[in-house]
Amino acid sequence: MAVYTHIDEDELRTFLEGYDLGEPVAFKGIAEGVENSNYFLETTKDRFILTLFEKRAAPEDLPYFVGLMDHLATKGFPAPLPIKGEDGQALRKLKGKHALIVSFLSGISPRRPSPAQCRAIGETMARMHLALEDFPLTRTNDLGPGDWPGLMTGRDAVANTLQPGLADLVHRDLASVVENWPAPGVLPRGTIHADLFPDNAFFLGETASGVIDFYFACTDALAYDIAVNLNAWCFEPRGEFNHTKGHALLSGYQSVRPLSVSERDALPLLARGAALRFFLTRLVDWSDTPEDALVRPKNPMDYAERLTFHRSARGLGDYGG
Amino acid sequence: MAVYTHIDEDELRTFLEGYDLGEPVAFKGIAEGVENSNYFLETTKDRFILTLFEKRAAPEDLPYFVGLMDHLATKGFPAPLPIKGEDGQALRKLKGKHALIVSFLSGISPRRPSPAQCRAIGETMARMHLALEDFPLTRTNDLGPGDWPGLMTGRDAVANTLQPGLADLVHRDLASVVENWPAPGVLPRGTIHADLFPDNAFFLGETASGVIDFYFACTDALAYDIAVNLNAWCFEPRGEFNHTKGHALLSGYQSVRPLSVSERDALPLLARGAALRFFLTRLVDWSDTPEDALVRPKNPMDYAERLTFHRSARGLGDYGG
Repeated sequence: MAVYTHIDEDELRTFLEGYDLGEPVAFKGIAEGVENSNYFLETTKDRFILTLFEKRAAPEDLPYFVGLMDHLATKGFPAPLPIKGEDGQALRKLKGKHALIVSFLSGISPRRPSPAQCRAIGETMARMHLALEDFPLTRTNDLGPGDWPGLMTGRDAVANTLQPGLADLVHRDLASVVENWPAPGVLPRGTIHADLFPDNAFFLGETASGVIDFYFACTDALAYDIAVNLNAWCFEPRGEFNHTKGHALLSGYQSVRPLSVSERDALPLLARGAALRFFLTRLVDWSDTPEDALVRPKNPMDYAERLTFHRSARGLGDYGG
Repeated sequence: MAVYTHIDEDELRTFLEGYDLGEPVAFKGIAEGVENSNYFLETTKDRFILTLFEKRAAPEDLPYFVGLMDHLATKGFPAPLPIKGEDGQALRKLKGKHALIVSFLSGISPRRPSPAQCRAIGETMARMHLALEDFPLTRTNDLGPGDWPGLMTGRDAVANTLQPGLADLVHRDLASVVENWPAPGVLPRGTIHADLFPDNAFFLGETASGVIDFYFACTDALAYDIAVNLNAWCFEPRGEFNHTKGHALLSGYQSVRPLSVSERDALPLLARGAALRFFLTRLVDWSDTPEDALVRPKNPMDYAERLTFHRSARGLGDYGG
C-alpha cells in the first residue's frame, strides 16, 4: 500500500493539459506497489495508472524502465504502455516529482497462486525474456550477490531477535552462495524483471493478463528471474515448497524457452541467492523503518524459512524440475 | 488511506457467486475512507466499490446506512446504490466481516474546494436533506454535544503539548457550547450526513457528482450538517475563514431549502460545536493511535485554529450568511 503524495484536482487538471487524454472523471489513490504513489485515473477517453516516483527508483534509471515497458507493450506483451505527452515525452514532472502515466491493465493479482497460474507466469516470463532479446538498453543489478554482504553488516543483532542463531546461518549462506555464484559468461544473460511477485502479475482466471512494476528490472542471468519466481510463487505460508507449483512454473517457462544444462545446474544456487536477496532487503526495511511509517515492513522470516528449504535442496528435482 | 483486510481472488470469486454481477476483471484496494477497507471492483458487467466494515460502524447500524443510501440513490440523488445479492440482501459477510457492494460514482474529490464547489455542495446537501424527509429510519448522533466533554477527559496534557494553554480554552468552549446548545424542538430535525468533508464528495468540474461515506449519518438538527460543512469546506490552510466560500455554501443551500430564523441564529454556535466535535475526535485519535498504525492520525490543531475563529464570530454575517 502506498500513496505518499496527495494531488489536488487542480494539479491533476494542469498536469493533464500536457496530454491528449481528455478530461478526468475519476482519480483514486490505489494500494499498489510499495515504492511509489499510484493512482487510478479515468478520463473521458480511457483508464490509466498515474505513478509518482517517490524513492529507490533513481531518476537516471527511469528512462530505462519506461523504454522497457514501451518495448514490451509495443510487441504485444501485456505490460503497461507508457503514455506520451503532447511533446512526445512519457516521463514528466508533477509536484516536483517524476511522473508517468501508463495504460490500465485488467486482471487481479492472486494471493495464493494456483498451479495453473504458476504455469502461466512461467510461460509469460519466458515470453518476456524473448521479447526483450532486442531491447537495446542495459542496467546493472544493484541488488546482486556483490551487494548482499553489505546489507547484513550491522544487522546480526536484529536477525537474532527474529530467530536465535539466524545471523550465523545467514553469514554461512552468504559465504557459500557468493563464492559459488556462476561467473559472468556461464549463464545466458538478458533483461530480467527481478521482482515478479504475484502482487506484480494480473490474471483473468488462469490467463496472465498483465505484468507490472518493472522498477527492479536489470540486465542479469535469465535464470535468476526464474529463481526469484520459484521463491515468490511456489512456497506455501509456512515455508514449505510446493513441488506441484514448482513443476508447473518450470515447465511453463520451458514450453517457451528451454533451459540450458548450465541453467538447470545453477538454479538451486540461484534460488538460494534470490531468497537471500529478499531476506536481506526485508531485514534492512525491518530494522530501518521508523515506527510511524505509513508502510509496515514485510517480515523477513518468510525468507529465512525459504532459506532453510534451499539449504537442504540437492538439485533441480527438489524444485519440481 | 485504508486497506486493512486482504482479499484473495478465490475469496472474491466465491463472494461474487452470491450476486449477479458477472466475473471480476479488476480488483484494487483504494485509499478512500479511514474507517473501512475499500476496493475498486470491476466485473464483466459494471464497476463497483466493495466495502468491508472494520470498526467504528456498529453492526446494528449497518441496515440504517444501507437503507439511507438506497433511499437516496433510488430518488436520483448521487449516492452509492447498495447492490443486492441474489437473495435480495445487500449486507453480506466476507472474511467474517460485514461487506457491502455499491455502485461506482464518477468524479474527483477536491482538496481545496473552489467557491463554485462550495455553492454546489450547499445545494447538494439541501437536496439530500429534502430527499431524506420521508426516510423512515432514525439513528441517534453518538458524537453529539452530550458526548463531547467525555472525549476531553484525561486528555488535557496531550492538548497542552499541541499548544500551551489549549486544554483550558477547550474546556471553556465546551462549557459555553454545551450549555447554550439549542433545546430539542427549537431547530428543524431530519437525517444528516454529519461528515460531508471534501473527501466524501465527488465533482466533475464544478458539478457535484457524488456523495459517499454515510457512516456517521444520524438524526439531528439539519443546520448542524451545514455547521459541519462550514468547518470542512470554507477554511483556508492557516485557519482563516474564507468569507466568499462561506457565502457560496450558505446561499447554495438556501437556494434549495431556505433557513429559518432560528437556524440562522443558531448557526454560529453550531459551527463552534462542530469544530469542537472534530477537534475532540482528532485529539482522541492523536493520543490513542499506536505509533506503528497504518493510518496516521490527523492533527487536531487544524480544528483548534477554527475554534479561535468561532470564538470571535459575532453572528452569521461573519460566516458569509
